[in-house]
Amino acid sequence: METATHHWMGDAITAEDIQASGAQATDAVARYALTLGDDSLILAQRLGWWVSRAPEMEEDIALTNIALDLLGHARFLLSYAGTAWDKTEDDLAYFRNEEEFRSCRLVEQENGDFAHTIARQLLFSYYAYGLYTRLQNSTDEMLSAIAEKAIKEVEYHVDHASQWLLRLGHGTEESHERIQMGLNYMWPYLDELFEDLPVHAELEGIAVAPSTLRPEFDERIAHIIGEAGLEVPTYPQARSGQRSGRYSEHRGFILAEMQWLARRHPGATW
Amino acid sequence: METATHHWMGDAITAEDIQASGAQATDAVARYALTLGDDSLILAQRLGWWVSRAPEMEEDIALTNIALDLLGHARFLLSYAGTAWDKTEDDLAYFRNEEEFRSCRLVEQENGDFAHTIARQLLFSYYAYGLYTRLQNSTDEMLSAIAEKAIKEVEYHVDHASQWLLRLGHGTEESHERIQMGLNYMWPYLDELFEDLPVHAELEGIAVAPSTLRPEFDERIAHIIGEAGLEVPTYPQARSGQRSGRYSEHRGFILAEMQWLARRHPGATW
Repeated sequence: METATHHWMGDAITAEDIQASGAQATDAVARYALTLGDDSLILAQRLGWWVSRAPEMEEDIALTNIALDLLGHARFLLSYAGTAWDKTEDDLAYFRNEEEFRSCRLVEQENGDFAHTIARQLLFSYYAYGLYTRLQNSTDEMLSAIAEKAIKEVEYHVDHASQWLLRLGHGTEESHERIQMGLNYMWPYLDELFEDLPVHAELEGIAVAPSTLRPEFDERIAHIIGEAGLEVPTYPQARSGQRSGRYSEHRGFILAEMQWLARRHPGATW
Repeated sequence: METATHHWMGDAITAEDIQASGAQATDAVARYALTLGDDSLILAQRLGWWVSRAPEMEEDIALTNIALDLLGHARFLLSYAGTAWDKTEDDLAYFRNEEEFRSCRLVEQENGDFAHTIARQLLFSYYAYGLYTRLQNSTDEMLSAIAEKAIKEVEYHVDHASQWLLRLGHGTEESHERIQMGLNYMWPYLDELFEDLPVHAELEGIAVAPSTLRPEFDERIAHIIGEAGLEVPTYPQARSGQRSGRYSEHRGFILAEMQWLARRHPGATW
């Protein structure tokens, strides 16, 4: 079956290429890839809610495009992770349980109003930009190729969120207040993105240690927040889930929606 | 603000071009464009639900891409319609009331299970393929240009729905039964697509008279349904809404979801 990817793939690698390449991730690389892929998958699911519900038709399309990009990144990363355990991307997306997902709490947060969603996009995209920029230098060739593909799209996500931050920050009194509330709301979930975990230590030269991304992130995010006439929040950090068994109360609901069809017909040849 | 359209627009016209072109639709052309645009808008909203909920990750991406294409068609058609009445695409998408929409009942039907959704896609895409093929010859240059842009994407939608029909029809006993049930369920809403209404008679040479699309549609749809080992339904037609004040009981819920944010902040400079 022809895939819809002709709309956006360009001539870079595809998720199918990864399975076909015969490349095999090590167990540690696969566990690392899951941390990245799950973030993208959950955030795509959250963003998908906005199809035809944004405040402008142009924005419907923009958010849908971003969801599509993130689904693409998730497919790459889950496909590659699956090579370590003889699993497909679908096995990993639809048949893992709640406690087996490695997503961060930030992407699990509810959409809230549009400003909430933009605040979440801003923080995640700035983080992802630093991450994929550096991951292009990974000594793992597949991770490097995935990062190279992702960075072009993430650059656009950064631009999109930044433009909205400026527009809302300098818009009406209400829009200013709402985007500040959005930043305040999302802020406590930020530290978790930059925590070094055991899997990062195992993969020197392959994984990017998240803590090393923090200084540049802090500088860039403070700059854009200032430009938008907003305040960098000082809210205390939430207790980190460390991408482990401790996760937000939202994850179960997100997965229930995401997995019900595939699980209702396990292994179906639909 | 840069738009996300760089992902998929190619070098054809964009919705912004339409407003910038200075082209002005007549009242009748605008009323006709609404019948086409509203179908695409509502179907996009229905399809968007599937982001991260399809039975395969590849399929999440495919359905999301199709939703995106349909949103694009809706933007073109609503933008052009708006030129007749000094309205923007957003005015028309978010600030018309239930009885002012001109969508057909087929696209308003619930997603149901995946087979239901595919049956709806099959019928609508085969109809749209005939429609946009012919609309390319419209003497209205803008409608012709929009049709030329849309047909390339609709060709893919036809292929996508056809491949799934074959796959489900020849899959398991359950998938066969479900897709047949999907076709049976959607069938009563088919006649409305092919009804000639007063607006079509007003626009000879500009609009495509829907009834003229029926013979080829019937032939092509019977062929693919037969190839899939399924039965062409003989269910009686539902009473037509004639794209007027009589519409499905779903429309109000769809619009409530679609319009709440824009309406909560009417004219907001978000």
